[in-house]
Amino acid sequence: MNQRPSKPIPGVNLPKTQLGWDKFYALTGAAEKLFTRSSFHEVSVSDICRAAHTAVGTFYIYFETKTDLYRYLVEDYKRRIKQSLSESIAPCTTRLEREREGCKAFVMFSVKNPTVYNIIWGSLAVDKQLFKDYYVSFAKSYARALTEDREELCNPDVMTLSYALMGISSFLGLRAIFEKMSEAEVDKMLDESFLPMIKEGIIRMP
Amino acid sequence: MNQRPSKPIPGVNLPKTQLGWDKFYALTGAAEKLFTRSSFHEVSVSDICRAAHTAVGTFYIYFETKTDLYRYLVEDYKRRIKQSLSESIAPCTTRLEREREGCKAFVMFSVKNPTVYNIIWGSLAVDKQLFKDYYVSFAKSYARALTEDREELCNPDVMTLSYALMGISSFLGLRAIFEKMSEAEVDKMLDESFLPMIKEGIIRMP
Repeated sequence: MNQRPSKPIPGVNLPKTQLGWDKFYALTGAAEKLFTRSSFHEVSVSDICRAAHTAVGTFYIYFETKTDLYRYLVEDYKRRIKQSLSESIAPCTTRLEREREGCKAFVMFSVKNPTVYNIIWGSLAVDKQLFKDYYVSFAKSYARALTEDREELCNPDVMTLSYALMGISSFLGLRAIFEKMSEAEVDKMLDESFLPMIKEGIIRMP
Repeated sequence: MNQRPSKPIPGVNLPKTQLGWDKFYALTGAAEKLFTRSSFHEVSVSDICRAAHTAVGTFYIYFETKTDLYRYLVEDYKRRIKQSLSESIAPCTTRLEREREGCKAFVMFSVKNPTVYNIIWGSLAVDKQLFKDYYVSFAKSYARALTEDREELCNPDVMTLSYALMGISSFLGLRAIFEKMSEAEVDKMLDESFLPMIKEGIIRMP
């Protein structure tokens, strides 16, 4: 969960020592909790520092602004989601298996981290461009992955497929949260309904 | 756009005169603009009244709290989306046509009213229950409609199909906003990629 980011994030100065990382994660963890309970604009830098038991000066060692800390949270979710997806699809040998395991990984990630929706969808109220960049870059990397398996796709329009598949995963994740689904119930939904849908479609043709 | 709601909304007292409706819509219109630019918690009742050129007392004639006005905005989007969907699918004779025209209606609604995402997804930061109720009730009515056409479906699990189809429409709507798609481009995306996807699926089976 607290694995370190591998690439630089604008406005964020990553720590150089273990003590630094401890303070950094105290700040990001406190901020995420506060942003989920209240809105971005309601939470001040001093609220974050108070909850993280750090001095306000410490905040500004790592983050230029409160928006930069929010951007870090979005980037960190993106990194953790991608990591969870890539681990779950590593053993798969077909696109069908990759879609099934990828969708499961996203849905289970959502169930375990329901605040992902607060942070990602909430970014629309913080910075529209941040929200757009998140989905556009996710769609592009999804489309690249689909292109590698293009012989297994019914349709060459990988960008539309990417948005459609992101939409399906996001909304099955919402449903799993709403209905407090167990992993077994998620597996059942994927095997009995998601797989047939991507293998045969939704509408029965005469 | 300013068609009047047909059912009572808790915490909202609907006007009884034309003058009352004028003030009511001045308040809801001003609030929506402010909630899209700033967050719910940043905007005060007096900000809304100032922008709507009404007295603060007028606000409380129609809304018990600021959250009740927000609930009105969510309910009003739900009503307008459902109306747009039902008008667009009225001439359709098959489920395939209904899905195509329904998806187009939602995507075009999103393109014309991009703030629908700010208000609906933003409701997660205002009142989690409001957000959940919106999607659960939308999914239930979608599932009821799919049940009526069940002979035309590949799969009897209408609830999973409803969430998946809501996800597809929501994310194709996002893409259409991001890419500033024209109606002709939306039609192309639906005919060349959405229709094949729901008719034949996504993965080509050997």
